[in-house]
Amino acid sequence: MKERVLSGMQPSGYLHLGNFAGALKNWVRLQDIYDCFYCVVDWHALTSNYANPSPIADYKHDMLINFIAAGLDPNKCTIFLQSAVKQHAELHLLLSMITPLGWLERVPTYKEKQTEIKDKDLNTYGFLGYPVLQAADILIYKARHVPVGVDQIPHLELTREIARRFEFLYGKGILTEPEPLLTESPKVVGLDGRKMSKSYDNAIYLSDTPEQIDKKIRQMMTDPARKRKTDKGDPELSPVYALHKIFSSPDEIAHVAAACKTAEIGCIDCKRILIKNISKELEPLWSKREELTGSPSMLKDILNAGNRRAAAEAEKTMELIREAMNLS
Amino acid sequence: MKERVLSGMQPSGYLHLGNFAGALKNWVRLQDIYDCFYCVVDWHALTSNYANPSPIADYKHDMLINFIAAGLDPNKCTIFLQSAVKQHAELHLLLSMITPLGWLERVPTYKEKQTEIKDKDLNTYGFLGYPVLQAADILIYKARHVPVGVDQIPHLELTREIARRFEFLYGKGILTEPEPLLTESPKVVGLDGRKMSKSYDNAIYLSDTPEQIDKKIRQMMTDPARKRKTDKGDPELSPVYALHKIFSSPDEIAHVAAACKTAEIGCIDCKRILIKNISKELEPLWSKREELTGSPSMLKDILNAGNRRAAAEAEKTMELIREAMNLS
Ligand code: SF4
Ligand code: SF4
Repeated sequence: MKERVLSGMQPSGYLHLGNFAGALKNWVRLQDIYDCFYCVVDWHALTSNYANPSPIADYKHDMLINFIAAGLDPNKCTIFLQSAVKQHAELHLLLSMITPLGWLERVPTYKEKQTEIKDKDLNTYGFLGYPVLQAADILIYKARHVPVGVDQIPHLELTREIARRFEFLYGKGILTEPEPLLTESPKVVGLDGRKMSKSYDNAIYLSDTPEQIDKKIRQMMTDPARKRKTDKGDPELSPVYALHKIFSSPDEIAHVAAACKTAEIGCIDCKRILIKNISKELEPLWSKREELTGSPSMLKDILNAGNRRAAAEAEKTMELIREAMNLS
Repeated sequence: MKERVLSGMQPSGYLHLGNFAGALKNWVRLQDIYDCFYCVVDWHALTSNYANPSPIADYKHDMLINFIAAGLDPNKCTIFLQSAVKQHAELHLLLSMITPLGWLERVPTYKEKQTEIKDKDLNTYGFLGYPVLQAADILIYKARHVPVGVDQIPHLELTREIARRFEFLYGKGILTEPEPLLTESPKVVGLDGRKMSKSYDNAIYLSDTPEQIDKKIRQMMTDPARKRKTDKGDPELSPVYALHKIFSSPDEIAHVAAACKTAEIGCIDCKRILIKNISKELEPLWSKREELTGSPSMLKDILNAGNRRAAAEAEKTMELIREAMNLS
C-alpha cells in the first residue's frame, strides 16, 4: 500500500507560474509515488481574508481547474475542498483543547506575518489558531508525509507535537506523526525580479491568455544596466534569465547567458525564447483547461468524488478520536 | 410563534440539588413560555477536562436522564447533545476568524478561572476560545434569549459583540443578538455551608438514593455555636436553614426559624423536616427516572429526536452563513 501524502493550497489568489513550478509540478510527480490527498484549504484562506471573502470563490474555482489541467489525475490522487469535509472543523475544535497557547505564540511565521501584513487586522483568534487547523488537516488523514519547504518545517513540527500530545493524553496509537517530505522547489521570480506573488502585482497567471503572457514578458524587467542593445548584460541581474533557468532547455540557458554577456542577443529576442518555452510548458494545461471549461459537470464530478473519499477517510479517523476522547 | 431560548449545561459532574433548584427548575418553567433548546455541552466540558475526559460520558448520561426526570418535556422543548450537532464546530471555526484575541483575553472569567483552577493546565487554545464556542452554540439557533445569572453577562455580551461583528462584516441580517433573560436563582449551599459544588465535595446529588440523602443531611453542618439541644441557635448561621428556605413551605420556614432561636426544636427534628421536604420535591423525579432506567431506548429516542431537530435548525443557519462568507 502506498504511503499517504497530504498537501494543501490556500485559495487566496489566482494560481501563477510560481505556484505551478514551485508546488503543482511536484504534486503531479508525487501522485505516482504516494497516495496523495490534495486539499484546497478555503477555510485557511479566511484566516487572513475574513474581511473580504468574496474573491475566494473565484480563486477556488481557478485552483481546482488548474489542478486538473496541470496534470493531477483524479484516478491517482484525491482532490478535495477543505470546507466540504466538516470533520476538519470538528478535529480543529478537539485539538484546540489540548494545544498550549505558548506553542502557537512561538510559531515563527505568526508574529512575522502579523508584522508583514499591515493592511489587515490579523490579531484574531482564528489567525493564532492557523497551525491547529493545519494539524487537523494533516492528522485526520493519518498522512505519513507532508511536502514542505524548509521555511514550513516549524509549522509541521507543531503538527507533530500536537500528535504526540494527543497520543500522550489518550494513547491509542491513533494519530501518525507526519514526516516532512523536503522538496526543493525553484524560487520563481516575478516580472520585477522580486519573488512572484499576487501581492507584488508581478505575476504571470495560469489563467493569463497567451497574448497577456506575451505582453507581460515583453514589458518585463531586464538587467537595468543594459540600456541599449549594444550594452553588454549580466544575466544574473536579469529576472528574464531567472525564468529561463526554470523554463528553458540547458542549451538555451547556456546560449542566452553567453550571448547576453557579449551583447550578441538583444533583450527582445531573449524574451521571445522565454515566451516560446513558457508557452510550450503551459500548452497542455491550456488545452486541458479548455476541455474542462467546456463541460462544467466534469469538474464538479471530480470534486464531489474527491470530497466523498476524503470525508470517508476523515470520518474513519474521527470515529477513533471520538472514542479515545470518550465522546462517542 | 414562540421566541427561542437557548441554554446549555456542561457535563463536568453529576447533577446536584444546586443545579436542580438553580437552573433545571427554571428550564422546566421556561419550556411553556418559549421555544427552548437545551444543550448538553459536552465539547465545553473538554475545555477544562481534556486531560481526563473519561467521566464525561457518565455525567452526560446522568444529565440527560435528570433533565427528563426533572420535567423537561421533549414535546415542548428540544433536548440535544452539542457534539452530535457538528455544525457547532464549523461555526466555531468560522467565528474564530472574526474574533479579536483581545476580546477573549479580557473576559473576566478567563483569567479568574485560570487562577482558581490550579490542578489543571488551562493555558490552552481551546480554553481561551471557550466564549467563541459558546457564541456558536447560541447564534447557530438564532436564539432570542439566553437565561443567565448576573455573573454570566460578560460572556453573553461577547456573543452579542461577535454577532454584531459578523453582521458588520457580512451584513445580511443573519445573526440575532441574544438578550439576557436574567434569572434570579437561589444560591444553594452545600453540606458545609459553602456553595454546593462538586469540587467542594459538599453536594446532594440527584442520583443519590433517599438513604444517602437522609444520611448526608443528618450529618450536615448546623449553627456551629449550637452544641447542645438546649443551646439557642441562629438559623442564619445554619446551612440547614438555608436549604429550608429553598425547599420548605413558608409556614415551616417561619416555624423552624423561631423554634431554632428559642431552642424549642432540636437540630435532628429540624433536619427531619428538611429531609421530608427535599424528598417530596424529588419524588416525581425519582419515579420518572425509574421509568426511564427501565426502558433505555426511551432516552435514546428522545435524544436522537432532539439532535435531529437541533441539527436541522443549525444547518439552516449554516447555509446562510456559508453563503454570506462566500463558502457555498
Ligand atoms: S538578454 Fe535576456 S538575460 Fe540578458 S538582460 Fe536581456 S532579457 Fe535579461
Ligand atoms: S435547629 Fe435547624 S436551623 Fe437551627 S441550627 Fe439546628 S439545624 Fe440549623
